[in-house]
Amino acid sequence: MKLEDALTQLEELQRKMYAYDAASNALYLDGVTVAPKGTGEGRGVALSILAGERHKLFSAPEVGKLLEYLTKHKAELSRLVQRQVEELSRSYEQLTRIPADEYMEYASLTNEANEVWETAKEESDFSKFEPVLKKLVKFNQKFAKYYDRKKKPYDALLNEFERGVDMEYLDQFFATLRERIVPLLKAIEEKEQPDDSFLHKHYPIEAQKRFSDYLMEVVGLDRRHCTIGESEHPFTLNFNNKDVRITTHYQEEDVASSMYSVIHESGHARYELGIRDDMQYTCLAGGVSMGVHESQSRFYENIIGRSLPFIQAIFPKMQEFFPEQLNGVTAEQFYRAVNKVQPSLVRIEADELTYSLHIMVRYEIEKQLIDGSLKVQDIPETWNKLYKEYLGVEVPDDKHGCLQDSHWAGGSFGYFPSYALGSAYGAQMLKNMEKEVDVWGTVGKGDLSAVSAWLGEKIHQYGSSMEPADVVKNACGEFDPAVYADYLTEKFSKIYNL
Amino acid sequence: MKLEDALTQLEELQRKMYAYDAASNALYLDGVTVAPKGTGEGRGVALSILAGERHKLFSAPEVGKLLEYLTKHKAELSRLVQRQVEELSRSYEQLTRIPADEYMEYASLTNEANEVWETAKEESDFSKFEPVLKKLVKFNQKFAKYYDRKKKPYDALLNEFERGVDMEYLDQFFATLRERIVPLLKAIEEKEQPDDSFLHKHYPIEAQKRFSDYLMEVVGLDRRHCTIGESEHPFTLNFNNKDVRITTHYQEEDVASSMYSVIHESGHARYELGIRDDMQYTCLAGGVSMGVHESQSRFYENIIGRSLPFIQAIFPKMQEFFPEQLNGVTAEQFYRAVNKVQPSLVRIEADELTYSLHIMVRYEIEKQLIDGSLKVQDIPETWNKLYKEYLGVEVPDDKHGCLQDSHWAGGSFGYFPSYALGSAYGAQMLKNMEKEVDVWGTVGKGDLSAVSAWLGEKIHQYGSSMEPADVVKNACGEFDPAVYADYLTEKFSKIYNL
Repeated sequence: MKLEDALTQLEELQRKMYAYDAASNALYLDGVTVAPKGTGEGRGVALSILAGERHKLFSAPEVGKLLEYLTKHKAELSRLVQRQVEELSRSYEQLTRIPADEYMEYASLTNEANEVWETAKEESDFSKFEPVLKKLVKFNQKFAKYYDRKKKPYDALLNEFERGVDMEYLDQFFATLRERIVPLLKAIEEKEQPDDSFLHKHYPIEAQKRFSDYLMEVVGLDRRHCTIGESEHPFTLNFNNKDVRITTHYQEEDVASSMYSVIHESGHARYELGIRDDMQYTCLAGGVSMGVHESQSRFYENIIGRSLPFIQAIFPKMQEFFPEQLNGVTAEQFYRAVNKVQPSLVRIEADELTYSLHIMVRYEIEKQLIDGSLKVQDIPETWNKLYKEYLGVEVPDDKHGCLQDSHWAGGSFGYFPSYALGSAYGAQMLKNMEKEVDVWGTVGKGDLSAVSAWLGEKIHQYGSSMEPADVVKNACGEFDPAVYADYLTEKFSKIYNL
Repeated sequence: MKLEDALTQLEELQRKMYAYDAASNALYLDGVTVAPKGTGEGRGVALSILAGERHKLFSAPEVGKLLEYLTKHKAELSRLVQRQVEELSRSYEQLTRIPADEYMEYASLTNEANEVWETAKEESDFSKFEPVLKKLVKFNQKFAKYYDRKKKPYDALLNEFERGVDMEYLDQFFATLRERIVPLLKAIEEKEQPDDSFLHKHYPIEAQKRFSDYLMEVVGLDRRHCTIGESEHPFTLNFNNKDVRITTHYQEEDVASSMYSVIHESGHARYELGIRDDMQYTCLAGGVSMGVHESQSRFYENIIGRSLPFIQAIFPKMQEFFPEQLNGVTAEQFYRAVNKVQPSLVRIEADELTYSLHIMVRYEIEKQLIDGSLKVQDIPETWNKLYKEYLGVEVPDDKHGCLQDSHWAGGSFGYFPSYALGSAYGAQMLKNMEKEVDVWGTVGKGDLSAVSAWLGEKIHQYGSSMEPADVVKNACGEFDPAVYADYLTEKFSKIYNL
C-alpha cells in the first residue's frame, strides 16, 4: 500500500460513513417531526438496513488493515489525520470487541426492552420491566469487561460515554454537590416562593413560534444553516457544520418550556455550527462528547438564558410578543419566576439547582447495579429513598419514579452523569470567560457575540480533534466542582435572599 | 446456487435498494421542504455517495449472475417474483449498456447544463444554453442506440419513459388532438370569458392550509399515511404504500393554484397508497409509469376536481373556509372560473384544454431534434412558430418560450408526451368507469370512494407488476385518442355554449 492511496481510502471511508449518518439522520428527523403517524414500519426497515450497511462498511477487515497501516505511518500524517486514525481505530476495536452474536442479541434485547419499558411506565409497574432490566444489567456487566478489562466495570461504561471520566472523578463531584446543594435547597424551602403564575397564562403557539425565531436570532444562529422544527421532545441534530436542526415542543400554558428548550438546543447548535471546516465529512466533525455538548446547551440555557442581564435585555421584546400575558410583569419578576426552585419528581422538568440531584440518584443506583451491590428488584425502594434524602420528595409511583427515563431501556448505563458534568463545566467556563470578556455588559445589551466567540475559540472549533478531557481543560482549567457549587450558591442566595 | 438461497438474495437486494431509495428520498424531501437554504452542499455530498453505493450494489457481477440464474428457473418462480426478475434484469442491462465513462461524462454534463440553463432562462438568452444543449442532444442520439439499436432513436428514448409508446402511437394521438382541439380553441376564443376575479382575492395561507386538509379528506387520503408539506413546486414522494407525502405551494392571490395542486398530488398519492402489500420493498412497489401516474393525478385534478358535481359538492364548505372571498359567488360561477380557457405561454400554468397543445409543441421539436432534422440553434424559431400555430400566442422571449422547462437541461428527451397521455388515458378510464359506477351521483355528494375503489381495482393495486401498456389496457381498453377529444369537446362546448 502507498501512503497516498491509504489516505484516499481513509477519506473515502469517512465520507461514506458521513453519507450513511446523513441518511439515517434525515429519516430520523422526518420521523419525529413531519412524518405521519402510521409510517414507522417502512422507515424502520430502511434504518435497520442502512445501519447494517454502515456496520458492514466499517467492520470490514480491509478497514482494520488500513488503520493498522496508517497507525504505523503515524509520523508521516498531519495532526488531524493522526486524530482521525486514532478515533477510527478506537471505534474499530470497539466494534470487534463484542462478539457478533452477543451484539445482535443485545440489539434485539434493547429493542424489546424499549417496548416493555413503555408499557411498564404506562402502567406504573416496575415488576413488568424488572426481568428485561436484569438482562440488560448482566449484558452491561459483561460488555464492561470487553471494553476495558483493567477498569472496574462501571468505570469502563462511564468511559464509553465520557472518555476520561471515572467513579473517582464523579464521587468527588457528587460529594461536593451533595454537601453544598442539599443544605442550600433546605434553606430555600423555608423562603417565600416567587409568583410564576404569569408563565402559565395562555400563550398562543403562533406567537411562541415567532418568539422562537427571535430567540435564535439573539443566540446568533445563522438561519441559512439552522432551522427549527417541532417534535415531542426537543433535540438538536447535526448533518454537518453548515446544516444543523433544532426542535422544540410548544405548550400553550407554559411559555418558559419552549423558550428554554430553544435556547438550550441553540447552544448545542452553536457548537456544531462552530466546528472547523477542515473536519467536515470526517469522524472529527461533531461535538467531542456528550458532557461537553451539555456544557454548551446548559451554558446558553441556564448561565446566560436564566441570568438577569439576559432577561432584562430581551424582556421589552418579549412583551411585544406577549403583550397581554406579560402586562404589568417586570423583567426582575420574570427572572425570579424562571429560576423558581422546586424539588420535583421528574428530571426533565427540574430547575437549574435541583437538576444535578436527580442525576446523583441515578449515578448512585447505576454504580451499585453494575458492581452487583444493588439488586434490580430493589431499585424502586432505593430510588424512592434517595429522592427523599436529596430532594425531600415522596415518590408516589414508579411512573414518576424509577421508570421515568428511557436510558436503561435503551441499554445506556453510565450516560446520566454527563448531564450534570456539563452544568459544572459551564460554571467554570463562565469564570474563565469573565477574565477575558465583558460577559454581563454585552449580554445585558442582548449581544451574545462576545460570549459565543469565546466558546467558539475555546471549544467549538475543535470538534472532536482533541480528547474530551483536553477540551474541558482548555476551557475550564482543572476540574473543580466547588466552582459550580459556588455559582449555584451565589445565584440562588441572591434570588431567595439567603 | 440453490433456488431458496437465490430467492433470499433477491429479496435482500431489493430491500437494500429500497433502503437506499428511502434514504435519498428523505434527504431530498427535507431539502425541498424544511431544510435551511444554505445546506445544499452537505446534502449533495451525501446524496451522491448514496447514489454511488446503490449503483455499486446493483451493478455488481453477482447481481448479474443471480438474475441469470433466476431467469433460467423462471418456471419455478411465483408470478410476482417472475416480474421482479424481469424488471431487475431490464434495469441491470440498462445500467451496463451505457459505457461507464460516457455515463459519468453525461452525469457531469447534466449537472453543468442545469446551471447553464438557469442562467440562460434568467437572462432569457437561448444562445447561452445552445452549446450545452447541442451536447445533450448528441448524447441522447448515441444513448438511444445503446437502449435499442433496432428502434428509431426517438422511439428508443420514448420507450425509456413510457414503455410501449412510440412515434406511431404518439403521431396518431397528437394528430387527433391537433385536428380537434385547435378549432375548438378558436371557437372558444370568440366567446365571452367567465369572470374569475374572485379567484384572485386575498386568500390567507392559514385558511388555505386548513382547506388543503379538507381536500385531502375529500379525496380520501388516510392522514396516518400521507402528510402535506410546502415546497417551491408541488410534488408527490413515495417511501412505500404506507408512507406517501405530497406538497403544495400557496399563493395568497390565487386560491385555485394550491387547491388543484393538492387534488393533483392527492391523485398521485392515492395511486401509491393503493399498491398491494405483497409488492412492498421490491422493485414492483411504486406506480408503473409516468404516463399512468399522470393519468391518476389528472383524473382527480381535472376530470373530478374541475367537474361541476364535485365543485357543487364542496362549495358550501369552501365558502366556510373563505366566507368573504366567495361571498355572492355560486358553485356554477366557480366551476366556470376554474375552467376558463386561455391560451398562454407557460405549460405549467395551462388550463385543461390547452395543456396538451403545449406538450405537442415539445413533442414535435424533440422528434426533429433527435432525428437530426431540426438544429438546436433553430429551436426558438420553431418553438415560437408552433405556439402561434397551435395556441395562437406570440412568444415574446425565450424565458417564456423554449427555456421555460428544466427537462432538457436535466437530460430528459422523450419525457413530455407522458403528461398528455395521462390526460387522455383518464378520459377513457372515465368512460369505462361510468359503465360500472354511478360516478357523478357519488361525486356530486362529495363521496369519491366509488371512483377511488374503481381506480384502485383497475390500476393502483398492481403497482409495477404489469407492463404499463397492460395497465392502460386493463383500465382503458384499446387506446383511442378520440375519446379524450370527445371528452374535451363536450365539456368545453357546454361551458362556452358552443
